[in-house]
Amino acid sequence: MPSAENMDEGSILVRTLHLSCDPYLKGCISTMFKDSPFAIKPGEVVCGIGIGVVEASTSPEFNVGDMVSGFRVPWQTRFVTKTEGFSKIEVDSKIKAIDYLGVLSMPSFTAYVGLVTVGKPKEDETLLVSSAAGGVGQMVVQLAKARGMRVVATAGSDDKVEFIKSLGADVAFNYKTCGSFADAIKKHVPEGIDLYFDNVGGEFLEAAVANMKDFGRIVLCGMMSQYSLAPEMRYGVKNMFDVVTKRLSINGYNVGDHYARPEYQSFIEEVSTLYRKDKLKYRIAETRGLENAPQALLDLLDSKVCGKPVISIASDSQV
Amino acid sequence: MPSAENMDEGSILVRTLHLSCDPYLKGCISTMFKDSPFAIKPGEVVCGIGIGVVEASTSPEFNVGDMVSGFRVPWQTRFVTKTEGFSKIEVDSKIKAIDYLGVLSMPSFTAYVGLVTVGKPKEDETLLVSSAAGGVGQMVVQLAKARGMRVVATAGSDDKVEFIKSLGADVAFNYKTCGSFADAIKKHVPEGIDLYFDNVGGEFLEAAVANMKDFGRIVLCGMMSQYSLAPEMRYGVKNMFDVVTKRLSINGYNVGDHYARPEYQSFIEEVSTLYRKDKLKYRIAETRGLENAPQALLDLLDSKVCGKPVISIASDSQV
Repeated sequence: MPSAENMDEGSILVRTLHLSCDPYLKGCISTMFKDSPFAIKPGEVVCGIGIGVVEASTSPEFNVGDMVSGFRVPWQTRFVTKTEGFSKIEVDSKIKAIDYLGVLSMPSFTAYVGLVTVGKPKEDETLLVSSAAGGVGQMVVQLAKARGMRVVATAGSDDKVEFIKSLGADVAFNYKTCGSFADAIKKHVPEGIDLYFDNVGGEFLEAAVANMKDFGRIVLCGMMSQYSLAPEMRYGVKNMFDVVTKRLSINGYNVGDHYARPEYQSFIEEVSTLYRKDKLKYRIAETRGLENAPQALLDLLDSKVCGKPVISIASDSQV
Repeated sequence: MPSAENMDEGSILVRTLHLSCDPYLKGCISTMFKDSPFAIKPGEVVCGIGIGVVEASTSPEFNVGDMVSGFRVPWQTRFVTKTEGFSKIEVDSKIKAIDYLGVLSMPSFTAYVGLVTVGKPKEDETLLVSSAAGGVGQMVVQLAKARGMRVVATAGSDDKVEFIKSLGADVAFNYKTCGSFADAIKKHVPEGIDLYFDNVGGEFLEAAVANMKDFGRIVLCGMMSQYSLAPEMRYGVKNMFDVVTKRLSINGYNVGDHYARPEYQSFIEEVSTLYRKDKLKYRIAETRGLENAPQALLDLLDSKVCGKPVISIASDSQV
């Protein structure tokens, strides 16, 4: 067990409270991100976004009792770390520690950047969003509705579809039972798509391309359907010529590029204001106990989770 | 034979001089553009961009002897047409009628729009351009060099490769003899691609995606490799997830959207100035005789043509 003894200067001993369980972790533990600083090799402790409380500090910036958030939190109950990449968080009666892995989390900011900065939404446009009950998708639906868009959303179970509708989506459908993706999209978006927010990639992306309006925009956020496949087994998108004839734009992005930009403050302000006024919902799918963390990740990758998965390992507090 | 008798008001009788032979015609005569106004049905006369001389006119805007350019010129020696879509052209000792299907043509403007407006080139960036000896590609190479880019270009024969080098490309290679596309691009662009100007699509597009730099841009102009394939037989691009991880942008466009914008004047000014000063080369692959027009189109689609194909049917003039 890590202890406060012999800690280097500028370090903190943190007791872990909550761990964020996100699709990108699949990339970290597979060969997909093997050249990335986020790669996790066999035998190494899984490490992701998390929240904890400082139990000892040799840093002038952190005091015992401070609540902290970091991008490199190991999936263990306590850990010693340099303070780089960690920041203090403020909690109160409305915004709790776990909300920093929920409504104010990286996936939530991912939704904001993709929809607002990259997607440039306009009132009365039609948005299609896939994987809409997840950590990113549920926020895309609500931020798009707040901007006056018509929102068509899809997810992989009837429960998720009901959840998405409760968030305000105009139409939601179950992609696992809809038959042909292209036909289902055509049925639910007969006017064509102005903006497609893609969380799944593969065959669904191809079907969305086929249903885009002229000059439509596609935001590529993630590709849940492709993460478990070897590169040569990934789905080949055959209708790229539609991108020419329809004059489409396709943009990939990474939320990590956007934290240092003014839009991060805009995100915090808009989302925390709406959340405090109960004008924004955010469903966290909480798993209790570190021993259940691997299964939580497997369930996420299996599309079994409705909401944003968080693993809570603080038995002694309800933060 | 069309004649000047019984012409409706606002019409012209035109004797055809030159016909532009372009890859998009394949789309017009196949089912690809079947819902487009440019569709050409079996039994109809092929119709494309062309140059002619007015032989009779019931329009106050056109006089006998005027040289005209139009987008809907039938592949026949004479025709009567409403004047809509036709405009007068000026010829002199340096810029001849055929140059309006060459250095000042639609494919040339296509190069300008794709490179300058869509591609937003920057000095010292690396450009990759495919099908670089064609009507669009040869202009992309030269306009990119004029903007201080490093230009890597590819084409389908050693003759074309030599031609591209003569235009100033820093590196040119034959994609038919290079082996793996991805390996060849990696070899010739070890630093990675900032801007890919795609004229071919399919497997070569996939190989380019694999060699893009982070934040690279891809301009989709056309997809020569895919035009002859049924939609379900088209090549599926399997590495779309690279678009996410590298934060790429992909933009399709159509030159037809850009004629009414100020950039058309910018194009005419830049290109005609450079051309008059002999700072721009443009190779026209001229076929003589209307009877040879079908073969010229087949040769173009077969990648056998070096330069911009034009069919000349004026036996009595050297305009």
